[in-house]
Amino acid sequence: MAPAQEQLEGEQIVAQNEDGTNCIERSRVTVIGSGNWGSVAAKLIASNTLMLDSFHDEVRMWVYEEVLPSGEKLTNVINQTNENVKYLPGIKLGKNVVADPDLDNAVKNATVLVFVTPHQFMEGICQRLVGKIKPDVEAISLIKGMEVKMEGPCMISSLISDQLGINCCVLMGANIANEIAVEKFSEATVGFRENKEVAERWVQLFSTPYFQVTAVQDVEGVELCGTLKNVVAIAAGLVDGLEMGNNTKAAIMRIGLREMRAFSKLMFSSVRDSTFFESCGVADLITTCMGGRNRKVAEAFAKNGGKRSFDELEAELLQGQKLQGVSTAKEVYAVLSNRGWLEMFPLFTTVHEICVGRIPPTAIVEYSEHKPKCCLT
Amino acid sequence: MAPAQEQLEGEQIVAQNEDGTNCIERSRVTVIGSGNWGSVAAKLIASNTLMLDSFHDEVRMWVYEEVLPSGEKLTNVINQTNENVKYLPGIKLGKNVVADPDLDNAVKNATVLVFVTPHQFMEGICQRLVGKIKPDVEAISLIKGMEVKMEGPCMISSLISDQLGINCCVLMGANIANEIAVEKFSEATVGFRENKEVAERWVQLFSTPYFQVTAVQDVEGVELCGTLKNVVAIAAGLVDGLEMGNNTKAAIMRIGLREMRAFSKLMFSSVRDSTFFESCGVADLITTCMGGRNRKVAEAFAKNGGKRSFDELEAELLQGQKLQGVSTAKEVYAVLSNRGWLEMFPLFTTVHEICVGRIPPTAIVEYSEHKPKCCLT
Repeated sequence: MAPAQEQLEGEQIVAQNEDGTNCIERSRVTVIGSGNWGSVAAKLIASNTLMLDSFHDEVRMWVYEEVLPSGEKLTNVINQTNENVKYLPGIKLGKNVVADPDLDNAVKNATVLVFVTPHQFMEGICQRLVGKIKPDVEAISLIKGMEVKMEGPCMISSLISDQLGINCCVLMGANIANEIAVEKFSEATVGFRENKEVAERWVQLFSTPYFQVTAVQDVEGVELCGTLKNVVAIAAGLVDGLEMGNNTKAAIMRIGLREMRAFSKLMFSSVRDSTFFESCGVADLITTCMGGRNRKVAEAFAKNGGKRSFDELEAELLQGQKLQGVSTAKEVYAVLSNRGWLEMFPLFTTVHEICVGRIPPTAIVEYSEHKPKCCLT
Repeated sequence: MAPAQEQLEGEQIVAQNEDGTNCIERSRVTVIGSGNWGSVAAKLIASNTLMLDSFHDEVRMWVYEEVLPSGEKLTNVINQTNENVKYLPGIKLGKNVVADPDLDNAVKNATVLVFVTPHQFMEGICQRLVGKIKPDVEAISLIKGMEVKMEGPCMISSLISDQLGINCCVLMGANIANEIAVEKFSEATVGFRENKEVAERWVQLFSTPYFQVTAVQDVEGVELCGTLKNVVAIAAGLVDGLEMGNNTKAAIMRIGLREMRAFSKLMFSSVRDSTFFESCGVADLITTCMGGRNRKVAEAFAKNGGKRSFDELEAELLQGQKLQGVSTAKEVYAVLSNRGWLEMFPLFTTVHEICVGRIPPTAIVEYSEHKPKCCLT
């Protein structure tokens, strides 16, 4: 029965039934984005909203409309088949996932927004959403990447919070979408700012027996892990291409984790060491440095002795997917250079200088033979 | 010119030349053990003693004498060729490495002892050394493994300290001996108890441009990392054998690192979180879970659905080398069981139960779907 009236009581939205009794307003989830990871997120969430009384069953998924080779619209096919045939073929999302090509319509009743688009689209999407969403919406960002400006990194969660005036958590981790889609065991980390109850609701909304989510009070730490690991993956790929072996690769990954931690803590004093032991930290770093496209392209770059550019190899190897590590390395370098910190971050610095061809791929190991002048740990 | 007299002045051994002037007594290094890793350690040290004024050039290496198929004695061949033809063929150890088959003779003038034998021989070796070494010898253990007794782990460094009445540091890290032998970049961690100056001398003695050593004040943490990682490597190998993919493997490694940390801190309250970010922690874990014999045999065990025992697969796959993970898992299980902590350590517990055939290999992932009842982090 639809509630006749709504009112805000504390932080709990309470509604009245037509007979005058109170009932708890159920949250409505909209997933903004429908790529590979967005579709898996919708599947995870949709399996939980069916079981949780505090959520409406329906999960709305905003889909950037495309016309498929068959001439059909992607949203129609998703709604008919419960499959995102283009970005997650073969996986049923759940009958309660509704694809919606209209962004305004997709968000208008939502009380819970899950952002999972490529990061370069977020600024435009936020602008379109201003004034279109409910005022007390809770948001979470699954987007890895950031805008680094001279004054420091501008995190996607901050962009969402600032532009829309809403609270925004993040979810990151060792999450190869296709493995989670087939329900292989995995973990993830929710980063929250202050409200632990909100974080626990996100944990509830995403957790399944095969997908275990833990909340930590460290939005920036969690989000920076998801971003900076791609720079380390470039370094790991270079080591693979140079055929330096397991010791060297593990050492480079460890130094990378140290620089991730040091950089994050210098940027945001609230960042906690313990975050780097979570899925978003060490586990995601391992996954990304063992598989992943940044590693793959960097390996090819080193094998070619740096003679073919990252752009060229990216186009050849990734079929249109884009590398994040190279641009993140550039952005991080700009911050370090601006603040006079280059020598404190030999790995980040060296990765960028290799990417732009200033020094050869072998420098990734040569650098390591000189300790940073400032202790980072 | 040999010093005529010796006297102890503070912590510095000072000697007098025959003309009555003082000179600093140079340290004499003996490496106890000459396997694969022992030979590489001798090579590292020998390259440094040539350059450091505070050490005698000569590095004595105690070799358990063997007669080679050629009929020659191993020590003679090492001293003639500067190569350990049996355990590190093709690598020159340095002309200043002297192989010595006589343990008493090898240690009698040593002021610095480096222990690097299989751990099961250490109790006997310590007994043989009582009364044979100089009183103020400084020792370091490179031995991974421990004796776990009901009252807790008995670390090798403690065994050495207690039996010989000397200070003992440890050196651990992501150190595949053959990769260091060919001078590929690597790192290691020295754990020390109190005396930072002694630790810095060990760092000096081992460090080379391709082998970077850092000291941390946490003997037990460093040593337990070197031991417990083998249990996690069994878990990682099982995941490989079950073909669960990168997310799952990274998650299992992360959970393993968490249990290593929690177990170490429960055993020794002095253990520091930061130790697990060092080479001995996360880097050695990565190396061991990616390569290594524990991983390899566990993978085969899972592929065979647990139908062939670890003993059988070990004999088949390792040509006489022994697994440490299975016995360490058993020892850790005994401690956990004795203290009522099994539920706090689901990964360690499950690994042991799989190894002994009590539950199937697939349980390594099923377990993970139940969170530990006690928060470990």
